Amino acid sequence: MSNPSSPELVSGVASLRDRLAAVRGQRGRIGLVPTMGALHEGHLSLVRASKSECDCTVVSIFVNPSQFGPGEDFQRYPRTLQADLDALAGCGAELVFAPAGEDVYRPGHATWVEPGGVAEPLEGRCRPGHFRGVATVVLKLLNMVAPDVAYFGQKDYQQATVVRHMVEDLDVPTQIRVCPIVREPDGLAMSSRNAYLSPAARARSLVLWQSLQLAATLVDEGERGAETIVRQMRQRILTAEDARIDYVALVDPESLEPVEEIVGRTLAVLAVKIENTRLIDNCLLQPPGPRAPVA
Amino acid sequence: MSNPSSPELVSGVASLRDRLAAVRGQRGRIGLVPTMGALHEGHLSLVRASKSECDCTVVSIFVNPSQFGPGEDFQRYPRTLQADLDALAGCGAELVFAPAGEDVYRPGHATWVEPGGVAEPLEGRCRPGHFRGVATVVLKLLNMVAPDVAYFGQKDYQQATVVRHMVEDLDVPTQIRVCPIVREPDGLAMSSRNAYLSPAARARSLVLWQSLQLAATLVDEGERGAETIVRQMRQRILTAEDARIDYVALVDPESLEPVEEIVGRTLAVLAVKIENTRLIDNCLLQPPGPRAPVA
Repeated sequence: MSNPSSPELVSGVASLRDRLAAVRGQRGRIGLVPTMGALHEGHLSLVRASKSECDCTVVSIFVNPSQFGPGEDFQRYPRTLQADLDALAGCGAELVFAPAGEDVYRPGHATWVEPGGVAEPLEGRCRPGHFRGVATVVLKLLNMVAPDVAYFGQKDYQQATVVRHMVEDLDVPTQIRVCPIVREPDGLAMSSRNAYLSPAARARSLVLWQSLQLAATLVDEGERGAETIVRQMRQRILTAEDARIDYVALVDPESLEPVEEIVGRTLAVLAVKIENTRLIDNCLLQPPGPRAPVA
Repeated sequence: MSNPSSPELVSGVASLRDRLAAVRGQRGRIGLVPTMGALHEGHLSLVRASKSECDCTVVSIFVNPSQFGPGEDFQRYPRTLQADLDALAGCGAELVFAPAGEDVYRPGHATWVEPGGVAEPLEGRCRPGHFRGVATVVLKLLNMVAPDVAYFGQKDYQQATVVRHMVEDLDVPTQIRVCPIVREPDGLAMSSRNAYLSPAARARSLVLWQSLQLAATLVDEGERGAETIVRQMRQRILTAEDARIDYVALVDPESLEPVEEIVGRTLAVLAVKIENTRLIDNCLLQPPGPRAPVA
């Protein structure tokens, strides 16, 4: 690890832009890692990806109120700025942009980015308005930072898909990179919300990863029926006594529309509440053997 | 007038960006004048404003389908590219960006910018979805061109207000300039849609400007009641036999909310159909004398 030095902490958009204009003036490539803080190895893998191809990496830390629904965990979402700065020092991020809420949504804010299509199923159905909030804040951050590349984690697969479509539809001149899920040694996908889990619930939460592995095994063994695979995934999840399933689905990885039969790369995706903590996870399934011939 | 030379015509986003990267590399300031073509002196005044403060002026010409409602005039909207290029040659615009429809709204387009607040009354009420289409295409053009400044005409006062709010709300790093209405010698605000009017309707359409002048005169004479002023404006408009009023309103020039009493700068704004051609116009009213003391 290189000698860690703390990233520069910037909270105002004007000073952020000044700082980045200097980078851009030297034809430096700018990478953005948008986060809500409470950083874990998943976030840090995004920072490392940015460091590997950009001259200046900006990590934004902003718990975005507009992507939380009523009754969701906006208030108690973990806010751990000093620990985040320490973690980022170890990765060499140059800038941390941590704006105040009132500087992001100023009085009179009334313009929203409404993503359709891929934003509608799955999370979109369970969390109305969630992706409107995500798309709006991501577009704002992209406009504040004007990065060459922005990095998102595959753990929030649908979010990354919504962002990719938004950037394409609105001609935002930023490349979007989606980086692999980082898991705990026992398979649980890293998430800032894992901190909510009691030790017993943390143990029960393994059913998410187990059900995804089960799906992969079934596909490897030749099962192609989505209904069969989903049924078995649900059974595995429900072995955790308090598990409440929001959805378990096999979908096309581009359109996010449900598939009936696994004929190519397919996304297994789920959202489950364990002990009132809502967890999401996903896994790309690839049936083995030669691809189906192109018609 | 400087020696006119035709602007460079660009239709692809990639080549537009290449061309502008060269300008930006020399620290050139870029101005954008977004239009739907069928250019008149109103548009040309925006080009001249851009020429006066930018190194490279891009005029976009795109008849944006998403801002027309069903039954509106998208199909018959005048398309006069060669005449537009000739007119722009006289003003010294460097680039004309005239994308094809399918390059602006690509298959699967599903992301929309939804402006609230100032987009809701007046045109927003008469033309549902209009400002969604405007905001979306303007944001797309701003992302394609990344101008330092973009120029809009006051004739579309509410449109300019919606764009100003959108740019502010979404942190778009472009300054918005709103330039004065350009009128025909007899007072009719210049508009590409004036070409729809028969000579007789063209004569009757003067009631729009007359009603705005009447409002200004009433205010000058001390009238402060919005209801009285609007009533007299409507009466004047309805002297044109086939005039159909969409709205006539006195509103706050910032919020676009109706005012009851003229106590400061007030926008008189109207939309009227003459011979089935929908015309809009507006005028800022300023009561004379010392301003009301600030509380």
